[in-house]
Amino acid sequence: MDYKNLDETGAYAKLLSRVPAGKPYDIAPLLDERRVASCLLPMAGGLSYSWAAKAVNTPELELLQALSDEQDLIGKYRLLLDGEIMNPGEGRKVLHHLLRGQLGKPVIYEGKDLGEFYARELERFSVFADLVRNGKILGSTGKSFEYAVQIGIGGSDLGPRALYLALENWAVAAGRKKLSARFISNVDPDDGAQVAASVDLERTLFILVSKSGTTQETLANELFIKGKLKKAGLDPSKHMVAVTSETSPLAHNPDYLDSFYIDDFIGGRYSSTSAVGGVILSLALGRETFAELLEGAHETDKSALENDIMKNPALLDALIGVWERNFLGFPSTAVLPYSQALSRFPAHLQQLDMESNGKRVNRRGEALDYATGPVVFGEPGTNGQHSFYQLLHQGTDIVPLQFIGFLESQLGDDVEVDGSVSQTKLKANLAAQIVAFAKGKADPNGNKSFPGGRPSSLICGKKLDPRALGALLAHFENKVMFQGFVWNLNSFDQEGVQLGKVLTKQVLSGQSGDSALDAYSKLLGIL
Amino acid sequence: MDYKNLDETGAYAKLLSRVPAGKPYDIAPLLDERRVASCLLPMAGGLSYSWAAKAVNTPELELLQALSDEQDLIGKYRLLLDGEIMNPGEGRKVLHHLLRGQLGKPVIYEGKDLGEFYARELERFSVFADLVRNGKILGSTGKSFEYAVQIGIGGSDLGPRALYLALENWAVAAGRKKLSARFISNVDPDDGAQVAASVDLERTLFILVSKSGTTQETLANELFIKGKLKKAGLDPSKHMVAVTSETSPLAHNPDYLDSFYIDDFIGGRYSSTSAVGGVILSLALGRETFAELLEGAHETDKSALENDIMKNPALLDALIGVWERNFLGFPSTAVLPYSQALSRFPAHLQQLDMESNGKRVNRRGEALDYATGPVVFGEPGTNGQHSFYQLLHQGTDIVPLQFIGFLESQLGDDVEVDGSVSQTKLKANLAAQIVAFAKGKADPNGNKSFPGGRPSSLICGKKLDPRALGALLAHFENKVMFQGFVWNLNSFDQEGVQLGKVLTKQVLSGQSGDSALDAYSKLLGIL
Repeated sequence: MDYKNLDETGAYAKLLSRVPAGKPYDIAPLLDERRVASCLLPMAGGLSYSWAAKAVNTPELELLQALSDEQDLIGKYRLLLDGEIMNPGEGRKVLHHLLRGQLGKPVIYEGKDLGEFYARELERFSVFADLVRNGKILGSTGKSFEYAVQIGIGGSDLGPRALYLALENWAVAAGRKKLSARFISNVDPDDGAQVAASVDLERTLFILVSKSGTTQETLANELFIKGKLKKAGLDPSKHMVAVTSETSPLAHNPDYLDSFYIDDFIGGRYSSTSAVGGVILSLALGRETFAELLEGAHETDKSALENDIMKNPALLDALIGVWERNFLGFPSTAVLPYSQALSRFPAHLQQLDMESNGKRVNRRGEALDYATGPVVFGEPGTNGQHSFYQLLHQGTDIVPLQFIGFLESQLGDDVEVDGSVSQTKLKANLAAQIVAFAKGKADPNGNKSFPGGRPSSLICGKKLDPRALGALLAHFENKVMFQGFVWNLNSFDQEGVQLGKVLTKQVLSGQSGDSALDAYSKLLGIL
Repeated sequence: MDYKNLDETGAYAKLLSRVPAGKPYDIAPLLDERRVASCLLPMAGGLSYSWAAKAVNTPELELLQALSDEQDLIGKYRLLLDGEIMNPGEGRKVLHHLLRGQLGKPVIYEGKDLGEFYARELERFSVFADLVRNGKILGSTGKSFEYAVQIGIGGSDLGPRALYLALENWAVAAGRKKLSARFISNVDPDDGAQVAASVDLERTLFILVSKSGTTQETLANELFIKGKLKKAGLDPSKHMVAVTSETSPLAHNPDYLDSFYIDDFIGGRYSSTSAVGGVILSLALGRETFAELLEGAHETDKSALENDIMKNPALLDALIGVWERNFLGFPSTAVLPYSQALSRFPAHLQQLDMESNGKRVNRRGEALDYATGPVVFGEPGTNGQHSFYQLLHQGTDIVPLQFIGFLESQLGDDVEVDGSVSQTKLKANLAAQIVAFAKGKADPNGNKSFPGGRPSSLICGKKLDPRALGALLAHFENKVMFQGFVWNLNSFDQEGVQLGKVLTKQVLSGQSGDSALDAYSKLLGIL
């Protein structure tokens, strides 16, 4: 396989020549009913991807297709599916797709079929979840579990938390919610203390999640919680399960009621569809819920194999993002779900994207001369409209937007005011924003004038259910993967987190070896 | 008063000439114990502002002082305090400082002393809160209130929510928490339905917050909640108070148990220290708590009157931000509190900053040729370290950072693991990150190499208590105000939200007048 930097491709110079000089690339005059109808791709999970309001047209799309072919994005995705070492820095395979189903060759590692291994763990924790939900597994005082509390940070927190919040109301309406989930992540002791105070410990099952079994925050929070359990007269080993790798100190450990396994080929930010997300989702919302989420993700993974960018929404989304980042020069992007249930989904995508592609060297460690991963941020609409949208509409910089919306609410509990229900108002706001951003509005008063030319895309679906959520999750995972291939990055390591860890240890050992670090430590009352 | 664009000042060209050509401005070699000790300013509320790790030195600071003098930033702040029309687009005064105490001349409007008006409302809702907390005011079935639920959006939501979360644990430890607060903001019907299901309606007091009394989301949610109350056999007028302006349809309305007033001179995003934040904070956490928060804010406002940038932390912070935005060219900035209690504080600052200064025209409506407000985002540390810090350390773009940290936790409930308690680990991580970002680390493996030169500042204090929080809030309000003056903006209107509102109404009326808007409406199942 050929690995080239983006600026070594033939398409790069051609795309550069498509950038209008000294003025924005404006599609507003073209944005009509026909464009909206034609710039629409079906996605898995019953979703659609609309790119009508993106600043891109046939000439760029043809070049982006050429870029995709030249960088062999689909070929690289196939290598990944087939179990090649696609995380070269750490010498690891990248197998989160395999959690959702087999799309490539069987992946055999040290004599073990990893597809079978993941499926077996899925079955194990699904059965475990059933037993807890049915009251067959009880706490140390013989009471059934009502709370599931995940202790984990980063990928062991953001994805699972975002998915739980996204489906909690849906599961209530579907009669599938049995346990309430909570999350402890921060090493700030107030985090764990507050969550512990909000549950009935006798009825709480803790899920300790750390692939390595050595995460500082997670181990500190584990001991903190074990102390609380003991103080309450409970047996911690009957109130805690572990999600970890088989080589970690947490594995096969009688301190836990049970342990469920992943391995080094499941990166933290890609682990939501493994036991990392699956145990808590299955406990709280049922194994069927998690199974449907996996189906939506698997269907999406399959659709991402298509070579034609006009038939592959994740690929098209990725390439339009590259066009915006490297050619139009936009440094950040906002994710704006018109769904309160997706309140923490932007925080998950922020990790997914910025930790994967926030890199300044290529997969061989050579410095790059072009921009890579953008800053990603976002909040749900309509809330954001009353907050940072001012800058998005009238600021000096252009921020490309990713809208998400659904035809129906999850609970179906609504009220009609002024001739429309709230869900309709929510959707009317969404439609209005897309057009307002794209077309703007001239006004003789500069203060009331909207420049327009602010590009956006829309992912929409009927209702946010597990299948749609799985599709949404996998769409962004695959988009980020394709962008990493375009930029010639290793999107699957995170060496950028190491230096902080090393210096933290030096501070805690009392030997920082740096006078500024000592001074900051003094300022913070450590030394 | 003279209003000049930034690029019309004498300091502008001189600052431009200070930008190193073709390489980053690197202070890493200078960052030692002495610099940390000397680049430290005391703030109100017992806080300190450390700018040692910012990419700025004496020559730039002298020019920034000259810029401050030339733009007469303190003079403009004084005009604002004195009640001049500092929101010219809407012809309004800007009086949120007056909520915290009198620093300028008495502000008389239509024969009314507005300082006295704000103080009277503060006293009224403080007494009301006492009566509710003491069980003197009861729900319609004679039960005391245990929940306070705010219905509001944007400034009526983000600030109050962030402040409540910031002080909830502190108030628990101080024995001051009596009611639990919740918030309904989004027009998404699932938001209101979920919150309503999480409280005991019989024991819930709703606070309806809308200055104009016409906010679409808030009125829809009000009717939604009133329906729930009636269905539960409760009298809505005994379970709801209003916070609004005296000219709104909600004022002097028997549908509410009581009404508390603000006026047009308190902007939404600056309203946390008015009844908008005060009613719910006083109900939930006590009137003393809110009073202390106001004291911290007032003390901060006073310190912001200092002309010398080396004695005025908000002014210095603002000017360093301008140096980073307009001269070093950084388009975004991250707020990183090492305190789980500040989990939603970045979302509030995102609104405060991006809605105030996300503008492309000056206060006279003329287009500007320089960048104004940056994109603001953030999450608490250490969580962010396991998420987007990868990009901050090793991405292709530089993002200036604003760290916040405290010596002590709020609950004081901690655990020692490996020789240190969690609060110490939290602080050690914070100190380590500042130095890691500034100094980086060379490594022959490009992938493990950290370029450094990533500037940050630190605000730190002993404990996050109401006074410190008030100081923190006012610091950022004043910083944003000073930046708006530097950029010659009107930071106090938000015309950028209007176009979306107009188009939404057109959609809901069935007469959008735009074929693309019709097409999006169809796609979303509205038409």
